[in-house]
Amino acid sequence: MYKYQTVIRLHLTDAAGVVYFANLFVLAHQCYESFLEQNTSLVSIIEQKEFIIPIVHAEADYRMPLRLSEKVVIEMALIKMANNSFELGFTFVNELSQVTTEVKTTHAVSQQNTRKPMGIPKFLKTALNRL
Amino acid sequence: MYKYQTVIRLHLTDAAGVVYFANLFVLAHQCYESFLEQNTSLVSIIEQKEFIIPIVHAEADYRMPLRLSEKVVIEMALIKMANNSFELGFTFVNELSQVTTEVKTTHAVSQQNTRKPMGIPKFLKTALNRL
Amino acid sequence: MYKYQTVIRLHLTDAAGVVYFANLFVLAHQCYESFLEQNTSLVSIIEQKEFIIPIVHAEADYRMPLRLSEKVVIEMALIKMANNSFELGFTFVNELSQVTTEVKTTHAVSQQNTRKPMGIPKFLKTALNRL
Amino acid sequence: MYKYQTVIRLHLTDAAGVVYFANLFVLAHQCYESFLEQNTSLVSIIEQKEFIIPIVHAEADYRMPLRLSEKVVIEMALIKMANNSFELGFTFVNELSQVTTEVKTTHAVSQQNTRKPMGIPKFLKTALNRL
Repeated sequence: MYKYQTVIRLHLTDAAGVVYFANLFVLAHQCYESFLEQNTSLVSIIEQKEFIIPIVHAEADYRMPLRLSEKVVIEMALIKMANNSFELGFTFVNELSQVTTEVKTTHAVSQQNTRKPMGIPKFLKTALNRL
Repeated sequence: MYKYQTVIRLHLTDAAGVVYFANLFVLAHQCYESFLEQNTSLVSIIEQKEFIIPIVHAEADYRMPLRLSEKVVIEMALIKMANNSFELGFTFVNELSQVTTEVKTTHAVSQQNTRKPMGIPKFLKTALNRL
Repeated sequence: MYKYQTVIRLHLTDAAGVVYFANLFVLAHQCYESFLEQNTSLVSIIEQKEFIIPIVHAEADYRMPLRLSEKVVIEMALIKMANNSFELGFTFVNELSQVTTEVKTTHAVSQQNTRKPMGIPKFLKTALNRL
Repeated sequence: MYKYQTVIRLHLTDAAGVVYFANLFVLAHQCYESFLEQNTSLVSIIEQKEFIIPIVHAEADYRMPLRLSEKVVIEMALIKMANNSFELGFTFVNELSQVTTEVKTTHAVSQQNTRKPMGIPKFLKTALNRL
């Protein structure tokens, strides 16, 4: 499991006074980028142009709202690993240890040029298995 | 079905050159707000403080990327209506008539004060059934 | 003058109930992209890789807040044109014909490869002078 | 001076491969919120409804682009303090110690109910003077 701590900032909220629903996906992806960074960086993946790992599916269950200035811990776990794709789960926990949100994202690996599916790069497989 | 046309603007894209995955949810919600507006407005719902309609679940399937300056039509349909909730589907169609993305959102109606589930307000039920 | 009409959507607002200050710049840029589109598109500029037109300065004066569901007209005008740069002004007018916000952006033209300043491309100069 | 460290994440970038210009304002405001948090929180200001501190002016000078995965330190300083308003400066410094961006924001204090200007609350004055 990889843990990422953050604070709910103003730009994430909306006029209903809580985090705008799409921004929970943004926070989950920030956690994912922070995890990747331990092994590689998103920018090097994008710039090397060997493979791409687009998100092919994303979903979220909203159990409780998150408010401005709340501290939240995002716990990222590997849900599933297939040949050419993997699925991550993100559990958002507030300061009262309540699960507020659950996000899942599915990432598929393809060759940059051909867009054909390819196996998950070894360094990433290793990093994901360590979760 | 409700149709909403928009253009992919720069702030929706990311360094990978395509629309950032979470922004497809933003576009779907813009379509939903535009639909609501024919009957009521989100601001009047928020300000009247009688009921709230938070999104309790959201998901997206990304089939093809959307690029800067692309024109896209979002087709919104009612997938399911229950007593206290409803589910909407958003199909993103590009200029080549290809479905690039499918988004679904589930909305649950609650009383503003008690947070208890309540029936879908009549005006909204009527509007949703007309879809 | 170029006019662009839009509606304040939920993702633009924050927990203070009004449009988040940085999002006025986003709206101004949407207006600019819509204007450009009449002559070229941002994507073709980015993909042709001949020149870039980065924003080198931006500023905003916030006179009145903009709220969720408000309709707003953005009036874009050319403030100044120099050899290698130009300055645009964006006046936000609400439904009561009040000026809520004034945004200015300065754009500098450079060669993509050398990053050296270059003259404003002719098609753009013509379009800007028509404003 | 107050220092805030952050990393450029994907959602901040655009199809030109660098941070979207309006997002530098978002990052500056995150720094400001983090500073405020040492003394109060934005949420308590918004919820107490005694006073508001809207941004009345914002501006940015963009000297160099910021790219995905770059680490950046934002240095926040007090530029000016008046009776009812104050001006903050944010200097963005990249890993090569280069100043990439300079942001300034002017904040005006008003009574929540009357919208009349009021003096800067004492706790905030003290905190700002300590910068």
